[in-house]
Amino acid sequence: MAKKLIVQKFGGSSVANVERIQNVAKRVIGYKKEGHDLVVVVSAMADTTDELLELANQINPEPEEREMDMLLSTGEQISVALLAMAIHKLGFEAISFTGAQVGIITDANYTKARIIKINAERIREQIKRGRIVIVAGFQGVTMDHNITTLGRGGSDLTAVALATALQANECEIYTDVEGIYSTDPRIEPRAKKLKAITFDEMLEMASLGAQVMQARSIEVAKKFNVPLHVRSSISTNPGTMIVKEVNRMEEALITGVTLNKNEAKITVCDVPDKPGVAADLFQNLSDGGVNVDMIVQNVSHTKKTDISFTVGKAQCAKAVKLTQKIASDIGAGDVVLDDDISRVGIVGIGMKSHPGVAAKMFGTLADNKINIEMISTSDISISCIIKKKFGETAVKMLHKEFGLG
Amino acid sequence: MAKKLIVQKFGGSSVANVERIQNVAKRVIGYKKEGHDLVVVVSAMADTTDELLELANQINPEPEEREMDMLLSTGEQISVALLAMAIHKLGFEAISFTGAQVGIITDANYTKARIIKINAERIREQIKRGRIVIVAGFQGVTMDHNITTLGRGGSDLTAVALATALQANECEIYTDVEGIYSTDPRIEPRAKKLKAITFDEMLEMASLGAQVMQARSIEVAKKFNVPLHVRSSISTNPGTMIVKEVNRMEEALITGVTLNKNEAKITVCDVPDKPGVAADLFQNLSDGGVNVDMIVQNVSHTKKTDISFTVGKAQCAKAVKLTQKIASDIGAGDVVLDDDISRVGIVGIGMKSHPGVAAKMFGTLADNKINIEMISTSDISISCIIKKKFGETAVKMLHKEFGLG
Repeated sequence: MAKKLIVQKFGGSSVANVERIQNVAKRVIGYKKEGHDLVVVVSAMADTTDELLELANQINPEPEEREMDMLLSTGEQISVALLAMAIHKLGFEAISFTGAQVGIITDANYTKARIIKINAERIREQIKRGRIVIVAGFQGVTMDHNITTLGRGGSDLTAVALATALQANECEIYTDVEGIYSTDPRIEPRAKKLKAITFDEMLEMASLGAQVMQARSIEVAKKFNVPLHVRSSISTNPGTMIVKEVNRMEEALITGVTLNKNEAKITVCDVPDKPGVAADLFQNLSDGGVNVDMIVQNVSHTKKTDISFTVGKAQCAKAVKLTQKIASDIGAGDVVLDDDISRVGIVGIGMKSHPGVAAKMFGTLADNKINIEMISTSDISISCIIKKKFGETAVKMLHKEFGLG
Repeated sequence: MAKKLIVQKFGGSSVANVERIQNVAKRVIGYKKEGHDLVVVVSAMADTTDELLELANQINPEPEEREMDMLLSTGEQISVALLAMAIHKLGFEAISFTGAQVGIITDANYTKARIIKINAERIREQIKRGRIVIVAGFQGVTMDHNITTLGRGGSDLTAVALATALQANECEIYTDVEGIYSTDPRIEPRAKKLKAITFDEMLEMASLGAQVMQARSIEVAKKFNVPLHVRSSISTNPGTMIVKEVNRMEEALITGVTLNKNEAKITVCDVPDKPGVAADLFQNLSDGGVNVDMIVQNVSHTKKTDISFTVGKAQCAKAVKLTQKIASDIGAGDVVLDDDISRVGIVGIGMKSHPGVAAKMFGTLADNKINIEMISTSDISISCIIKKKFGETAVKMLHKEFGLG
């Protein structure tokens, strides 16, 4: 087998206690024994971050973000040191590094910093010396030496960015599931693990509610064409490859069905139908830090129209408040909130070349007496907003109708 | 009151929980309100270090020292971030730094690194901006960016070194006692808190067993003439100043009485009385990493002599093993271990100018039927090895006889 440079990422649950850290050590060494070079990215031990957050919250419920990053970055530093010790104990050479030490340079947007560049020289040097290199995930450092963290899914991002910088042959994301499924197995037990999925499909899956990986890391992997292997940290089964292109023998119409119950729908009624009104509304929401997801506006026949959009539930109150102000400014009518919704989506590059996928989806929902409140489509996905209680049924029916079971 | 630059050090018990961190924040702000500039050095929260050590021990009882420092340095990083948050909460500006971030450059002797230099520019810049600067104690960084720790008493050393580098007006060491006492108040309730003590006296106190500060920090403070103020983190009472010279109105004969029950005595019997034998013995012990404390050798009338020395109990087994080997090599007799000993000492610059202090000490012990097994003296101290059970009695009697009560 050819010698490969493999970047592996283990999340917080994979290093949650001494035994699991020892298991990760064994697993990593297994690859080392096969002759590969290894860079291992580790998250904070599960619970550590929560404990630190709780301490911070008791002291200052609105902590300065720079200090928050100073605090939270210790979690990964603990993990990397312990993993290095576990590997040493088994007789192999390893060295741990913080984000700062391996030159993961970010901007100064504390708690959600973006990686500007990586000076991978130090890692390359240690790999040459035959060591397993262990890097703290989720963190970086600004040009003037302040510690930053990368926000949700930050350790995945560290792994993908390192794989890019090091031109790694593989990037493995170890997680507590076996891979990416055709839908959530907790909802549909007949869900199938996918052998492979494209970056674009995965991006749609992520944004439509699949929780395995954050969209941000997938975007970077897509940009630099780093194939990802999402797999279980417990079993040795192969997981799901996330790649640029998938050659499926029999092209499936769709790849997966997603469900997101964490959104709410806001409707602005009787919006004057003139240019710039929608721009005004969404610019103001964006300025207010609200992430809008789906947007639907119907053509108007009455000089007035309704605009509906969805936002994450956490931002719901803020979004309504902002929307009410703007509605009043632009002479629109009521602002109506509906948080009793589910968003069900189908994703698949197959739908590009197969007409009728949308019709089949809508038909399936209709056959099950499920009313569609909003529709939004992209090249490779279709999402529908339905009543919350129909979410699981819709997933099961679509999974079956599109032959994913 | 003139504006001063004050370096303050708070130990692990002073930041052991949220409430105590808040108290430290209030205390620091009190000085800020008086117009002073502040650099605050903080240790890890009490228990944090023990918890990390326990984790490490479970994974690898003999961890690589570099990884140990990587692990342990997180403790202080947590403290500084939390203290900064607590100060922010009270409406004052503060910024936290790791040892690496403020340029505390050390050698690569992990777990007991020595400070080579400090680039205090970053601290000065933040002071100029009116911020309270919080620095992680106990840690530094090598020239090639590896994290190091400074060993026992490391946070004191950080404070003293920063006070030196910044030419601070004061360096306050906050602790859980009220200051330095004429003897251990747990043994002699009439022990008096000393207003002031010289560096040299404090060094003797430290080496003779007073636990408040490690000798290393005092040596650095002496070298750069940084006056230290050892005081309580709970009360606002003034503590004890450690300074170059003390002008006492009525020169006391001695300043303090010390007791150390953590040593053992090793005697090598019938050592051939020829040049180089003692050198051989102690060079070998030193090469073996054994710290020898007192050494006594009597003049010989028989071509054979006995050599006795004391070592810390932790190093006892190793020392005996090494000594037996050397004894055999040089043709000496038995090696006898006695760990049933106390070392009682008196310290004071007064004895330089007053004859008869030693005689008074020996007389006091004799009056109390306490046999002296070894004697060792310096310019400003006299130590006697006696049976362990007499330790406390000896301290009380000497404290009384020298009028310290």
